[in-house]
Amino acid sequence: MTANRISYTPIGVIRSPFKVAEGTPIQPAAGKGIRGTVEVFPAHARGLKDLVRFSHIILVYHFHLSTKSSLQVRPFMDDKLRGVFATRAPSRPNPIGMSVVRLIRRKRNILHIQDLDIIDGTPLLDIKPYVPEFDHRKKAMYRIGWLKKRAHHVTSTKADRRFAR
Amino acid sequence: MTANRISYTPIGVIRSPFKVAEGTPIQPAAGKGIRGTVEVFPAHARGLKDLVRFSHIILVYHFHLSTKSSLQVRPFMDDKLRGVFATRAPSRPNPIGMSVVRLIRRKRNILHIQDLDIIDGTPLLDIKPYVPEFDHRKKAMYRIGWLKKRAHHVTSTKADRRFAR
Repeated sequence: MTANRISYTPIGVIRSPFKVAEGTPIQPAAGKGIRGTVEVFPAHARGLKDLVRFSHIILVYHFHLSTKSSLQVRPFMDDKLRGVFATRAPSRPNPIGMSVVRLIRRKRNILHIQDLDIIDGTPLLDIKPYVPEFDHRKKAMYRIGWLKKRAHHVTSTKADRRFAR
Repeated sequence: MTANRISYTPIGVIRSPFKVAEGTPIQPAAGKGIRGTVEVFPAHARGLKDLVRFSHIILVYHFHLSTKSSLQVRPFMDDKLRGVFATRAPSRPNPIGMSVVRLIRRKRNILHIQDLDIIDGTPLLDIKPYVPEFDHRKKAMYRIGWLKKRAHHVTSTKADRRFAR
């Protein structure tokens, strides 16, 4: 049963200044100040009630430009092959992306957002409120593996074409 | 184009002591100490390389018991109708769930995890490393809307049957 395919329908589309993978920030931390919008399809607009009172939201989206899936990849910030589940690369078995962005304001079905690392035209699957009590773990407990010496490079690293078609 | 259906295939299944929605913690923060496993299907095991060096991972999964989708819901910690995208309720247009859990160890294709709020048998869609530099935003900037006075109740609130079939 669990091997069955699961189907979702996009609830909207993400608009950003990044038209191609090359040069796009690889995480929201690198897209600081970059503004974009989320066009939620009007049929879902009622679901946006109360959202604007959250300063940050989690966008869950489909990496629509990722066509190949690899179990091991060379991430943007590394030159070694890493297990894809230990990376945030888009070339995953299920190309689902997730970014925490700032929510600036809502106008009807349009959300104005900031700190963006998402390519223009990306299909949106879900929006969740970002709640530190739910989503954050105390720093003392962290180990971040191969990213330990690299995570701080995230703000200066841009994507290239390796995961794009 | 963006209104097309998107299909994913589960990469594994989540095993936990929670067999039904009722009584299940509503967030990982409430499932502190609860242990479970992630059975990644053997075909994907190579993708787990390097993962065990991360202390926390993000599980992305399908809320398989959520059959109804509502644009406005009464969340577990509130008695008002809220826009579903301003809640973490499972009854979403695309019932995608997301939890940050502790990774204890890996044995081949089995991940032993802790701090669990997920129901047994949940189909797993993706695993990502939890990286504070990517996923955390400084507390000073937060507004968390209707959850402001309630988020700290998360550890004592258990699910009931409202979103389950």
